[in-house]
Amino acid sequence: MATGRNHRPATRSRGIPEATVARLPLYLRALTALSERSVPTVSSEELAAAAGVNSAKLRKDFSYLGSYGTRGVGYDVEYLVYQISRELGLTQDWPVVIVGIGNLGAALANYGGFASRGFRVAALIDADPTMAGKPVAGIPVQHTDELEKIISDNGVSIGVISTPAGAAQQVCERLIAAGVTSILNFAPTVLSVPDGVDVRKVDLSIELQILAFHEQRKAGEEAEAAAGRKGPDGDMPAVMPA
Amino acid sequence: MATGRNHRPATRSRGIPEATVARLPLYLRALTALSERSVPTVSSEELAAAAGVNSAKLRKDFSYLGSYGTRGVGYDVEYLVYQISRELGLTQDWPVVIVGIGNLGAALANYGGFASRGFRVAALIDADPTMAGKPVAGIPVQHTDELEKIISDNGVSIGVISTPAGAAQQVCERLIAAGVTSILNFAPTVLSVPDGVDVRKVDLSIELQILAFHEQRKAGEEAEAAAGRKGPDGDMPAVMPA
Repeated sequence: MATGRNHRPATRSRGIPEATVARLPLYLRALTALSERSVPTVSSEELAAAAGVNSAKLRKDFSYLGSYGTRGVGYDVEYLVYQISRELGLTQDWPVVIVGIGNLGAALANYGGFASRGFRVAALIDADPTMAGKPVAGIPVQHTDELEKIISDNGVSIGVISTPAGAAQQVCERLIAAGVTSILNFAPTVLSVPDGVDVRKVDLSIELQILAFHEQRKAGEEAEAAAGRKGPDGDMPAVMPA
Repeated sequence: MATGRNHRPATRSRGIPEATVARLPLYLRALTALSERSVPTVSSEELAAAAGVNSAKLRKDFSYLGSYGTRGVGYDVEYLVYQISRELGLTQDWPVVIVGIGNLGAALANYGGFASRGFRVAALIDADPTMAGKPVAGIPVQHTDELEKIISDNGVSIGVISTPAGAAQQVCERLIAAGVTSILNFAPTVLSVPDGVDVRKVDLSIELQILAFHEQRKAGEEAEAAAGRKGPDGDMPAVMPA
């Protein structure tokens, strides 16, 4: 990699800091929107605003990709989409399985955002025998008994768990034993996994908690404004157009 | 965690950095697990490990809360749960409405993680008249025509949008006009909102993209190990475009 020699102490993953990796999907989302509007180039300031990131941080992040833009022109949108997609591994096909086809599993199966990013739903798996064979998002649900065969036959390395909390750890262990090495966990429980397996947990309430923090702050500011106590350096809501 | 970043990273709210605010729910989740096991105190190292955060960063974050722990004893679990909950505004009741009761909306309505954090699903709203009156998660769905009245009657300031992409902006505008000032957006589209309104976007594919990055890295390391080319200091091959 172009910047692979610039190792920093806190970095891992081929020299790219984890925090940068976490921002790459945000840049990619903003760039894809520009690409769809046939915008050829973008400045670091514009792209940073669209991605909700500080522009100096964006330039630093892109330097890890070896992408520095052109002074007075900015970044080539299409090339940057390609660079980030390649860095994230999205230029290859990732078959994923979704285990647990309740409302959430069905919503995930129908979620258009996966296919457009190189993720192909290879199979839907549920423990309920009455679900077997029923199509969800056009894919027939398969029974949990088939889990190991499905993982093996499809070369699946990424599993999505959307089962109830009580079933998640066992499903997780079966997925790993069958060869899965990355797990996206939507079940409201903490999973134990061996070294070498990546787990990312989605807690749907975390974003709500962050909104509650801001709501509380806004309520406090209104109370202060009403009381005429707000100081000259009062915090601004500072919300960017989404 | 999937997240839209609609705030400028430099934004501070009542002196607490946005990045710290984003970590408070992670600490709270870990502390709640300890509390449920009746663990009275926890060291910064243990709590940091449970939350997946660097312990120095945790101590810094807690210093913003005025919480410094006791040398040799650690942090009082119950008091820290209270402090963080209060800081996040979770000690009060937040009525939320969910608009768009497809699979995802139904999954959110059934999601236990909201109620345990002070979020009460005040109403479920859908544009499909045939849904009206049908109970989902024990709550009868109401028609979109009632949206403004529902927001007003329940004093709702937080709205969750789980409609299809095409309906999201209009729903967003109606929520805001009716008095909502924070929006959690699950629809796969970018929402425009006026100043003073907070939007957080959940993109369910972002976490998968981060997993794909690590999967690609793991595959690369295996290939290197197989080829016996890996240097003693872990030098990686050049895989970046020039």
